[in-house]
Amino acid sequence: MSQLLRVQNFGVSSDGFGAGEGQSFERPFGHADPRELFSWAGATASWPNRTEPGGSRGLDDYFTRDFHHGIGAEIMGRNKFGYQRGPWEDLEWQGWWGDEPPFHTPVFVLTHHVRPSFTLSDTTFHFLDASPAEALEAAKAAADGKDVRLGGGTTVVREFLAADLVDTLHIAVAPIELGRGERLWESPDDLLDRFHRDVVPSPSGVTHLLYWRR
Amino acid sequence: MSQLLRVQNFGVSSDGFGAGEGQSFERPFGHADPRELFSWAGATASWPNRTEPGGSRGLDDYFTRDFHHGIGAEIMGRNKFGYQRGPWEDLEWQGWWGDEPPFHTPVFVLTHHVRPSFTLSDTTFHFLDASPAEALEAAKAAADGKDVRLGGGTTVVREFLAADLVDTLHIAVAPIELGRGERLWESPDDLLDRFHRDVVPSPSGVTHLLYWRR
Repeated sequence: MSQLLRVQNFGVSSDGFGAGEGQSFERPFGHADPRELFSWAGATASWPNRTEPGGSRGLDDYFTRDFHHGIGAEIMGRNKFGYQRGPWEDLEWQGWWGDEPPFHTPVFVLTHHVRPSFTLSDTTFHFLDASPAEALEAAKAAADGKDVRLGGGTTVVREFLAADLVDTLHIAVAPIELGRGERLWESPDDLLDRFHRDVVPSPSGVTHLLYWRR
Repeated sequence: MSQLLRVQNFGVSSDGFGAGEGQSFERPFGHADPRELFSWAGATASWPNRTEPGGSRGLDDYFTRDFHHGIGAEIMGRNKFGYQRGPWEDLEWQGWWGDEPPFHTPVFVLTHHVRPSFTLSDTTFHFLDASPAEALEAAKAAADGKDVRLGGGTTVVREFLAADLVDTLHIAVAPIELGRGERLWESPDDLLDRFHRDVVPSPSGVTHLLYWRR
């Protein structure tokens, strides 16, 4: 089995935005409330940030617990890694995720402003100024034969789709409108020329869209 | 996290039968055609018996690929292990699955007619004359901290439900009627006094029912 490039648990609004306008340290998703985009995942038993026992074990839980299965590396954009733009003013920033990032694999951060790799727990961050195809080649080589997750943000997913490098996508459409921000697509139908799609409404209110190559 | 007892990818007809009448070597599911019960799984990319590349990577594939994730042991009934009834006439029978059984863990076969354990590839079959609670204790001890799969057949699932030992169930309801055979339930609503449920229709025609404890 060849290695796949997979988008997983990627949240968008019903009008197609993966993040709002005005991203900052205080507002990583801009004017969007990430709780509205991701409450479906937070309610599940397998949500990695869960601090109390319990949680649902229905449909939504299959998606949260599948997040790391069979994944050997992640590719993300610099805007997912941090709120800063342009050259690094200091290197103290090590991402949003504290000492135990939820990736547990090598992570390749795409940026025009490279910096040295570093390791937090079992996650190592590398910084690449590279094309999507070059980044995917590096990630596959590091993934020990497993699949590669394309972590976002929105711009990075669009770039890899434009380069036709994505094999599967799981997009969770939340029942909210954002009106402006980082747009993933004009319509969920945009991808149907190249992908099959399952539309799976969840009792939680989110709709899971599953795409795989034709 | 405590160890769960999970029923996974268990196929039933729309009228509640997990197997037909008249099970035999030639007809392991009796008058039922197993292809009608399990075609949804066979069409997926992750189906373990797949001999050609391809296959769907939508909703149904999440269920087939979740089959072995986090599972450290299986419990099954003697009628799932083989077509024979009563005392073993010989011990040459080693199950339906050939030299590479798809379990990859210890498997505990419940039977009044115990026989010595044996190993095929990375699956070891043990034979227990035990109550559901005793079998579950043995399986959990062998599961290395992981969950235990309750593999069926129908009678065994009913016995463990009656003993209130099941934590989650994934039942795939196929759009066929069998009329007679091994009945799992009178109605999918039978379990709602003790379980939450998600009803998830799949584009393949099967309906996935997901139960977890209240």
